[in-house]
Amino acid sequence: MSNQHESQLSHLNETGEAQMVDVSSKKVTRRQAVARGQIRMKRETFEAIKTGNSPKGDVLGTAKIAGIMAAKQTANLIPLCHPLPLQKIEVNIIGDETLPGYQIEATVITKAETGVEMEALTAVSIAALTLYDMAKALEKSIKIENIRLMSKTGGKSADYQSRI
Amino acid sequence: MSNQHESQLSHLNETGEAQMVDVSSKKVTRRQAVARGQIRMKRETFEAIKTGNSPKGDVLGTAKIAGIMAAKQTANLIPLCHPLPLQKIEVNIIGDETLPGYQIEATVITKAETGVEMEALTAVSIAALTLYDMAKALEKSIKIENIRLMSKTGGKSADYQSRI
Amino acid sequence: MSNQHESQLSHLNETGEAQMVDVSSKKVTRRQAVARGQIRMKRETFEAIKTGNSPKGDVLGTAKIAGIMAAKQTANLIPLCHPLPLQKIEVNIIGDETLPGYQIEATVITKAETGVEMEALTAVSIAALTLYDMAKALEKSIKIENIRLMSKTGGKSADYQSRI
Amino acid sequence: MSNQHESQLSHLNETGEAQMVDVSSKKVTRRQAVARGQIRMKRETFEAIKTGNSPKGDVLGTAKIAGIMAAKQTANLIPLCHPLPLQKIEVNIIGDETLPGYQIEATVITKAETGVEMEALTAVSIAALTLYDMAKALEKSIKIENIRLMSKTGGKSADYQSRI
Amino acid sequence: MSNQHESQLSHLNETGEAQMVDVSSKKVTRRQAVARGQIRMKRETFEAIKTGNSPKGDVLGTAKIAGIMAAKQTANLIPLCHPLPLQKIEVNIIGDETLPGYQIEATVITKAETGVEMEALTAVSIAALTLYDMAKALEKSIKIENIRLMSKTGGKSADYQSRI
Amino acid sequence: MSNQHESQLSHLNETGEAQMVDVSSKKVTRRQAVARGQIRMKRETFEAIKTGNSPKGDVLGTAKIAGIMAAKQTANLIPLCHPLPLQKIEVNIIGDETLPGYQIEATVITKAETGVEMEALTAVSIAALTLYDMAKALEKSIKIENIRLMSKTGGKSADYQSRI
Repeated sequence: MSNQHESQLSHLNETGEAQMVDVSSKKVTRRQAVARGQIRMKRETFEAIKTGNSPKGDVLGTAKIAGIMAAKQTANLIPLCHPLPLQKIEVNIIGDETLPGYQIEATVITKAETGVEMEALTAVSIAALTLYDMAKALEKSIKIENIRLMSKTGGKSADYQSRI
Repeated sequence: MSNQHESQLSHLNETGEAQMVDVSSKKVTRRQAVARGQIRMKRETFEAIKTGNSPKGDVLGTAKIAGIMAAKQTANLIPLCHPLPLQKIEVNIIGDETLPGYQIEATVITKAETGVEMEALTAVSIAALTLYDMAKALEKSIKIENIRLMSKTGGKSADYQSRI
Repeated sequence: MSNQHESQLSHLNETGEAQMVDVSSKKVTRRQAVARGQIRMKRETFEAIKTGNSPKGDVLGTAKIAGIMAAKQTANLIPLCHPLPLQKIEVNIIGDETLPGYQIEATVITKAETGVEMEALTAVSIAALTLYDMAKALEKSIKIENIRLMSKTGGKSADYQSRI
Repeated sequence: MSNQHESQLSHLNETGEAQMVDVSSKKVTRRQAVARGQIRMKRETFEAIKTGNSPKGDVLGTAKIAGIMAAKQTANLIPLCHPLPLQKIEVNIIGDETLPGYQIEATVITKAETGVEMEALTAVSIAALTLYDMAKALEKSIKIENIRLMSKTGGKSADYQSRI
Repeated sequence: MSNQHESQLSHLNETGEAQMVDVSSKKVTRRQAVARGQIRMKRETFEAIKTGNSPKGDVLGTAKIAGIMAAKQTANLIPLCHPLPLQKIEVNIIGDETLPGYQIEATVITKAETGVEMEALTAVSIAALTLYDMAKALEKSIKIENIRLMSKTGGKSADYQSRI
Repeated sequence: MSNQHESQLSHLNETGEAQMVDVSSKKVTRRQAVARGQIRMKRETFEAIKTGNSPKGDVLGTAKIAGIMAAKQTANLIPLCHPLPLQKIEVNIIGDETLPGYQIEATVITKAETGVEMEALTAVSIAALTLYDMAKALEKSIKIENIRLMSKTGGKSADYQSRI
């Protein structure tokens, strides 16, 4: 069974070496991916960001812009990712009192031969790191958690929908 | 108290707007940061990577290189990070049967006016995303978890050591 | 009326937050944009560039190359720009005795779902900054002026032609 | 006299070819540069940005972040600029009812062998282009104007202070 | 005859100035390019890499990843190259006892209006430089040799096949 | 003896994995590297470049600028290179009737803990690729040859001077 799996490790060729797989024979279709992650901090850090954020919104606004710009760098960061045109990138960040911290969600759309899961996951990761950067003077024990793919549509393989 | 915290949100100036803070009066010292994170997957995905990885090591090797290169892109990704010379970047990835998945650790050293926490955290994040990318044909429910600062030394503020 | 305008601020979503708008349902058509700007300097600076430039053309040649390369970086510089394939970039710089200084014009062509105004404007801006850089040892009061879109063709919205 | 000026075109060597000049024998000192520019638009465009901007501040916030990040790209955009560590980047944008439009100011500090005029001018230029990008759906005749160095301190050459 | 050739120097316009040529009227077709080069070193350097390489493969693996990532940077490095989507990048490196040293081959595929010769040649060049970098502590007289196009298919101009 | 060499493969740690070595304890000194390479073409290609080049010099000028800009990208291209401040980059290209073709030489200077051999070699490589790009419409059999380090000075290890 691991043989079957190994053949699905599509970035490795038959001899186990890394490659950027040929997608030239795949069809160009509209593809969307949604990813999520969260950042957890102490309650006083969370309150400080909320207070600092109220009039100008710069902490969350900066993190959103960083996430959007990072999605465009995905193929420069992840070695075997294909460079793709991107038709939409949206990053949303909302406070979560129960963590406490923030929930981050990124949606990316392309019309291409392959999907944009990595672009959405990269946007979430860099938005989270930017939040960390802007709060790290307050607290060093902040954690970035649960970065995951929520859904993926378009392309020949079945659509994916996370249950959590 | 939140006032006191707000003033520590050092990337925001007095009016709450984002800025890249002035570190020109801080002393150049040797500074080191260590960050960690983990990636969790199904046991069959983990076994497939191990098998695919055995002769050539390309899955883990590619993720390590991606992490090292990403550390050098930190100031281009995180809007308010200072561009710094980096004297050492090391990324280690080891299998963890209990997750199952991989533990990722990055160590970064600079001689500069400010620390390299973000560089270490960025290296861990991009190494984890690269592992995700190379295994995503096998499993879409892989999760990146618990990205955190382990330790920070050098500079005027007290050294930091995570307890977990 | 400002409501009507606000809805046209297309990079902001309904709640006023920045987004990279979805162009995936727009048609791929050939689109061209032309932008212009000028750089004004003292007559002796202008004469020095002309003299220094005569045998090798490196001042103007370097600025042209910088403009062309910058057009390709537009989506990495302007946060909400879509990354686009570019089919042509041309930058022209001609001396203007009456300023005195230089007139810079950039033409960019794509076949995409959205236009290349920002690519043309970015090419002009960076070419102008490069001229500034190469002459700044001579004069610090050089000014970059009147960067504007001259024309825009292709796509569903009406073609645009500047009157000046 | 033009001979004397030509020799000051420091990016050209004796034969008129472009070079990145040797600054290795210059002293590392704290250097600061301030640059300014403005963006002029129709009154209704200006009002639309103000209205759209009120709750979240994303138009100006996005432009500021773009300017800060662009300053860090200066040596990658301007061919003969030296790559420098940067200790501070600050971009401020304020509405100007009389234009109408916005005044943009950037301040950059380094401790290096050469100054940061180009970094400050690049921050202003890209912040202005970002404002243009976010308002271009409303108006195509927006103009970027009067990008100039305001002051320069540090280093062996005399400090510079613009009179306007 | 030189007139005829000059007109084929397609990156120069009629007045001899550099431009990025307009390919918007060319047809999008599947295009492939293969490039090769070699790196020559002393026998003891070659043996040291082989030994150091055996268990983990990191020297060759790192060079391959660097070549793949560099192919994606081609349009940012070569001033007049068009930015293209890339559907496949493969880099292979094999030991050559007779040099002694390594043979490097890169294959790149796009579906675009112009070919990917420069992407393949850039991948070979950067992979070779990475090998050099990893062995330079052992030997400073390593040489990178014979970087050339092997074949080019697709597009209107005749396919090309190198005889050596 | 290969054991002794293996330990000198400084980018590999004790277990053979890639790392970016720690140079933080090395001394900051002025370091210079000179690299060379050549590009060989048919006589008619060489003549066409010379003719096309005469009034404006854009072929060689463009290649020089590309080489200078590439030197600044070295740490982003070569995975284990340290990001360094660069105090001087000079690229010279001269015609060689006997090849026929061009000889390319790059000189790079830093004040840092490690040398700039890779920066000089990268500048030569990208300048050569740019020449190739600008002439490839004329000839597909152009070859880039003999890229090598000419000299290296500064730092604790002995200066190096190539004999050829």
